[in-house]
Amino acid sequence: MPQGVPVAVPDDGLSTRQRRHRPLLIVHTGAMKGKSTAAFGLALRGWSAGWSIGVFQFVKSAKWKVGEQAAFQALHDVHQRTGQGGPVEWHKMGEGWSWARKQGSAEDHAAAAAQGWTEITRRLAEQVHDLYVLDEFSYPLHWGWVDTDEVVATLADRPGRQHVVITGRNAPPALLDAADLVVEMTKIKHPMDAGQKGQRGIEW
Amino acid sequence: MPQGVPVAVPDDGLSTRQRRHRPLLIVHTGAMKGKSTAAFGLALRGWSAGWSIGVFQFVKSAKWKVGEQAAFQALHDVHQRTGQGGPVEWHKMGEGWSWARKQGSAEDHAAAAAQGWTEITRRLAEQVHDLYVLDEFSYPLHWGWVDTDEVVATLADRPGRQHVVITGRNAPPALLDAADLVVEMTKIKHPMDAGQKGQRGIEW
Repeated sequence: MPQGVPVAVPDDGLSTRQRRHRPLLIVHTGAMKGKSTAAFGLALRGWSAGWSIGVFQFVKSAKWKVGEQAAFQALHDVHQRTGQGGPVEWHKMGEGWSWARKQGSAEDHAAAAAQGWTEITRRLAEQVHDLYVLDEFSYPLHWGWVDTDEVVATLADRPGRQHVVITGRNAPPALLDAADLVVEMTKIKHPMDAGQKGQRGIEW
Repeated sequence: MPQGVPVAVPDDGLSTRQRRHRPLLIVHTGAMKGKSTAAFGLALRGWSAGWSIGVFQFVKSAKWKVGEQAAFQALHDVHQRTGQGGPVEWHKMGEGWSWARKQGSAEDHAAAAAQGWTEITRRLAEQVHDLYVLDEFSYPLHWGWVDTDEVVATLADRPGRQHVVITGRNAPPALLDAADLVVEMTKIKHPMDAGQKGQRGIEW
């Protein structure tokens, strides 16, 4: 458990308060389960803090994570009804982004991913959310559908206090270099090794 | 992302359906952030599946994770009001377990931890929950406050389909041996290394 005590005080000219409120770029990578799950756990905490949460799922199919989406929809509704917590938006590339005027061809994942990043760039400039979960965004970067250098530059220049969490395997080295926090989920043991199949509630 | 395809079909005499519904013992360990966060993300998914969730925090102070607790309380209330999702109970060792008749001395953490495990044993026998989050339970095991062999035996014999997630550093080897799924959160980079202090929404 973090004790809130920094290992060293950096010579960056920032006050403790400025450092405390520095927006973070977080990457969850590695071969193992838990990357997205931990990101959604973080979003849960942000919701409680009253943050505006934006989830962007960069996946071909959106059949996974319907459980998390339903839970965050419920939390968004709680916010709308009672003012507790913050608002949550959940966008999926799977069936075409909800804001896209023209639903792209289901096959054109590269264009859809680029479209997603363009929208996120716009939102970052307008400071729409306090926490962005870019779920499985490492793949469009890894595959070159979205330019990693441009993403890193945009994130470095983002205004205000907007936290960004990017999940997925094969996160490009330049992204890891730019990140404040990188967690690698390492597989020690997995039930599928023993023939266990995926099951509702655990896998989706 | 798991594809739901087992690497091998085990010779355990179980049908696919039986294996699919096998209750899991999951351990999140390692030095890095994300152990508890990922467990709460898993609980979020379980909530959506309509599961009864029991969270048991084995920590001295309960000042952390108030955000998650508030979010799950909101989800519990949604369940009570609308029937969506499942019920959530959240118990903390910090100020003495809520069910304890006599609030133990704040200093007697060993006795409090044992008391917590006794209650969990009772609930497992009665199949009270579908998912148990034993947060930071690795520490009472590591310190010998609760006997690891007894925990492993109790979990091996638990009836029905009760999933258990245990988080924390220094998980005993016997627990890892017994687990179906072990994820180690490995530190690649942490902002506290650069003098960053903890901040609300990210750390608690």
